[in-house]
Amino acid sequence: MVLIRALEQKILSEGQILPGEVLKVGSFLNQQIDTKLLKEMGEEIARLFRSNNVTKVLTIESSGIAIAFAAALAMGVPAVFAKKHSTSNLSGKVFSSKVFSYTHQQTYDVVVSSDYITSEDTVLIVDDFLAKGNALKGLIEIVEQAGANLAGCAIAIEKGFQGGGDSLREKGIRVESLAIIDKMTDDSLEFRPQ
Amino acid sequence: MVLIRALEQKILSEGQILPGEVLKVGSFLNQQIDTKLLKEMGEEIARLFRSNNVTKVLTIESSGIAIAFAAALAMGVPAVFAKKHSTSNLSGKVFSSKVFSYTHQQTYDVVVSSDYITSEDTVLIVDDFLAKGNALKGLIEIVEQAGANLAGCAIAIEKGFQGGGDSLREKGIRVESLAIIDKMTDDSLEFRPQ
Repeated sequence: MVLIRALEQKILSEGQILPGEVLKVGSFLNQQIDTKLLKEMGEEIARLFRSNNVTKVLTIESSGIAIAFAAALAMGVPAVFAKKHSTSNLSGKVFSSKVFSYTHQQTYDVVVSSDYITSEDTVLIVDDFLAKGNALKGLIEIVEQAGANLAGCAIAIEKGFQGGGDSLREKGIRVESLAIIDKMTDDSLEFRPQ
Repeated sequence: MVLIRALEQKILSEGQILPGEVLKVGSFLNQQIDTKLLKEMGEEIARLFRSNNVTKVLTIESSGIAIAFAAALAMGVPAVFAKKHSTSNLSGKVFSSKVFSYTHQQTYDVVVSSDYITSEDTVLIVDDFLAKGNALKGLIEIVEQAGANLAGCAIAIEKGFQGGGDSLREKGIRVESLAIIDKMTDDSLEFRPQ
């Protein structure tokens, strides 16, 4: 709870609202990383999913890596990050899905080597942001392709007003967001009470 | 020293040598992340640079983020990651340089918002791999543009036989690599004694 309030305060004091419902939090979450805060966020995520016997944390490059690392470290399990397109270093069999990014207005391939997620795994998906939920849907598809068990999704900041999180919850997927923004205008933010 | 030997053992047991002098270590360093090992690597980097009063760790997306986070966390400072091209979320003044990637055979822009590195900073550059040193040179250029002090560079795995590390050392830049591979054939690796 203390952590949640600290994160909300940080969003209020350092977040910048840009046109197109963009919330920029590059000062602590996804360009500059406040390592102490992210460590605590990782520990909170580990606490929320402590009864799930998670064996792998899955995220997507690049801005999900730091929070996923922090959560996986706190859980004592490996983190795996999906790449946004096939690279020459990613040989062999892969799981993949297609994701449309509203921020960049383009569709990209999300790819994970099949060596790193198996049907034995219980996977927690972790990401920095949740808006319409397209990236999460792509990662969930990869977990399904692997035949792995999905523990749920843990997110740093959810833009609740864009509906992606609630639509996943309605499907029965557990989505835990450390901060949920329910309303965002040009100069104000409103958090969902939790 | 125990950590260095553990890392070398991990490279020998899990690394895959691919055509084109590519060493694939996706199982623990740059697709799946062994969080416990990376935490220890970060602590070793912090120990090596403990007298330098580092204020920021700088890396480049994506595969440098985990090791940079681990090092910055151990040092109690923020990590900053450079992006490989300008995105719509990166508004305002930026520092940038051009880097040629041998792996991907293309030149890309490396960009950091000028909000996150200033002339007051002492910067440690951290990355997962060092081969010809092009990425490091791009990051060093960014540190210079910011007018910041460069503490040096810390690398997980250096391909010593590709010369990038030694050429930076000859210029007087401190480069510390946790493992240095001096010889690589299709089926064998030789580490530089250290």
